[in-house]
Amino acid sequence: MTDIPRIKGVLSPVVTPFKADLAPDPERFVRQCRWLLSQNVGLAVFGTNSEANSLSVEEKIDLLDRLAGAGLDSARMMPGTGCCALPDSVRLTAHAMKLGCGGVLMLPPFYYKGVSDDGLFRSFAEVIERVGDTRLRVYLYHIPPVAQVPITLGLVERLLAAYPAQIAGMKDSGGDWSNTKSFLDAFAKAGFDVFAGSESFLLQNMRHGGAGCISATANVHSGPIAHLYDTWRAADADAQQARLDVIRGVFQKFPMIPALKVAIAHYGADPGWTTVRPPLVAFTPGQAHALVAELDQQRFAMPGLAAR
Amino acid sequence: MTDIPRIKGVLSPVVTPFKADLAPDPERFVRQCRWLLSQNVGLAVFGTNSEANSLSVEEKIDLLDRLAGAGLDSARMMPGTGCCALPDSVRLTAHAMKLGCGGVLMLPPFYYKGVSDDGLFRSFAEVIERVGDTRLRVYLYHIPPVAQVPITLGLVERLLAAYPAQIAGMKDSGGDWSNTKSFLDAFAKAGFDVFAGSESFLLQNMRHGGAGCISATANVHSGPIAHLYDTWRAADADAQQARLDVIRGVFQKFPMIPALKVAIAHYGADPGWTTVRPPLVAFTPGQAHALVAELDQQRFAMPGLAAR
Repeated sequence: MTDIPRIKGVLSPVVTPFKADLAPDPERFVRQCRWLLSQNVGLAVFGTNSEANSLSVEEKIDLLDRLAGAGLDSARMMPGTGCCALPDSVRLTAHAMKLGCGGVLMLPPFYYKGVSDDGLFRSFAEVIERVGDTRLRVYLYHIPPVAQVPITLGLVERLLAAYPAQIAGMKDSGGDWSNTKSFLDAFAKAGFDVFAGSESFLLQNMRHGGAGCISATANVHSGPIAHLYDTWRAADADAQQARLDVIRGVFQKFPMIPALKVAIAHYGADPGWTTVRPPLVAFTPGQAHALVAELDQQRFAMPGLAAR
Repeated sequence: MTDIPRIKGVLSPVVTPFKADLAPDPERFVRQCRWLLSQNVGLAVFGTNSEANSLSVEEKIDLLDRLAGAGLDSARMMPGTGCCALPDSVRLTAHAMKLGCGGVLMLPPFYYKGVSDDGLFRSFAEVIERVGDTRLRVYLYHIPPVAQVPITLGLVERLLAAYPAQIAGMKDSGGDWSNTKSFLDAFAKAGFDVFAGSESFLLQNMRHGGAGCISATANVHSGPIAHLYDTWRAADADAQQARLDVIRGVFQKFPMIPALKVAIAHYGADPGWTTVRPPLVAFTPGQAHALVAELDQQRFAMPGLAAR
């Protein structure tokens, strides 16, 4: 069993396309993932922006199988596999390993609030032990505004001590740079890969020893974000960062997930993309028009998308 | 297809027993549910206090099948069937209807925060439409401290208008009597059954047209809570309520779910009951001893439990 190369760089929590009957649309999904790889963006499928927690375990397994079946490189996949229920997390993580995924992005169990680090340690430990695969690389997913259950420094320290080969890094979607920096300061030198939760922190993260970013807007502004990762030591890095911030700022004026889907529908000339699953709500034509107008004003483009 | 009698009274979010390997323990579960029915307490299995969101859909379906297979009255069952993912909610709800459950207690999808009433309406509507069973009785589950996604008056109004036969009531676990009362005032006369989320509000709820309560502590203080429901118009009702509050107060000094399990283990002479699934943590012997000492001091008992 050979080692899978370590994931670095820019990944996208790939938005999940749905058919009119709200079933996942595997053909559109595979096409989108292939386009993202062509932009040098890795596949953090089943993230928050993927509406992953609106998908059943079976639907996620099927979509992952479709990606592998289409020949996409599983070493560049970091599927979200952290569920509320231990057997679901084990099942999804084991399936990701069967397909040779480069890593898994693991939410803590997020229903029960105010749980202890003891309980969270045991949650992650049980998944790692039950999956029992030495190739497993777990990236802990810190997103307190949504999950409401944080990943603390103390928890990471305990997990790293117990599973130094499996605990590979984290994604920090807390939106607080000082928190990201405290994880970098504590663990980056030991090989713990910190991904910023958005490209807004990409340059800062790279300058402090981070591994890249996993960002909603990497679904749409894909090539330019990946380019900053590749050239973050270049003279124009700050200018690149400023341009990324402008485009992200446009998306942030809108509910993010339907906005990403509208952009893909519009710039990919594929109106079927706009469907979201409840409890989310798709944009009205007015909202969609307003988003596209602002993006056009910024000369935003998604090269090669319409031809995919 | 005959109508299932409407659920009223006291129900317990039945705590879920686990084996040492953390698998659900169907034998202990059936015995506990049978004992609860003997105390005149209905079965709101798969509630928050059941660690339901730490169970997979398959595990819930299996446990429900075990209850039905053991001959327990499904008309007295109100399983929790609201999941984050629409297909999971549909699958569980349809299974509950196949078994003839008297109702289902439905959480809103709880991962995405700040969602609109439009999105929540569509979530519940999709489940009702897809299950497509005229016998379905949905009880909406309002538990903002945990789910962080509330059930509003406006949402209930819209759902009742669209599905008057299916939207049967709610459980209010917000802990705020004024909120419960606003739902009673708005909808109780139209036949919408409001269950208080704990017996602390049982008497008040009955005096204002409520239907009963669904309470964690009905797992353990079962008979006395059910007795107050049966005799809430009696002269000693306030005294009964005061006694219920004392016992609930003891449990509330501790993390609720492991405390309930310790009480069942102790008063049922069945130590295997104390196991919880991560992210929860079982009591230390010291915590267990402290709980039992306080309960003994209050002459707390669980009649018939050890003999079950």
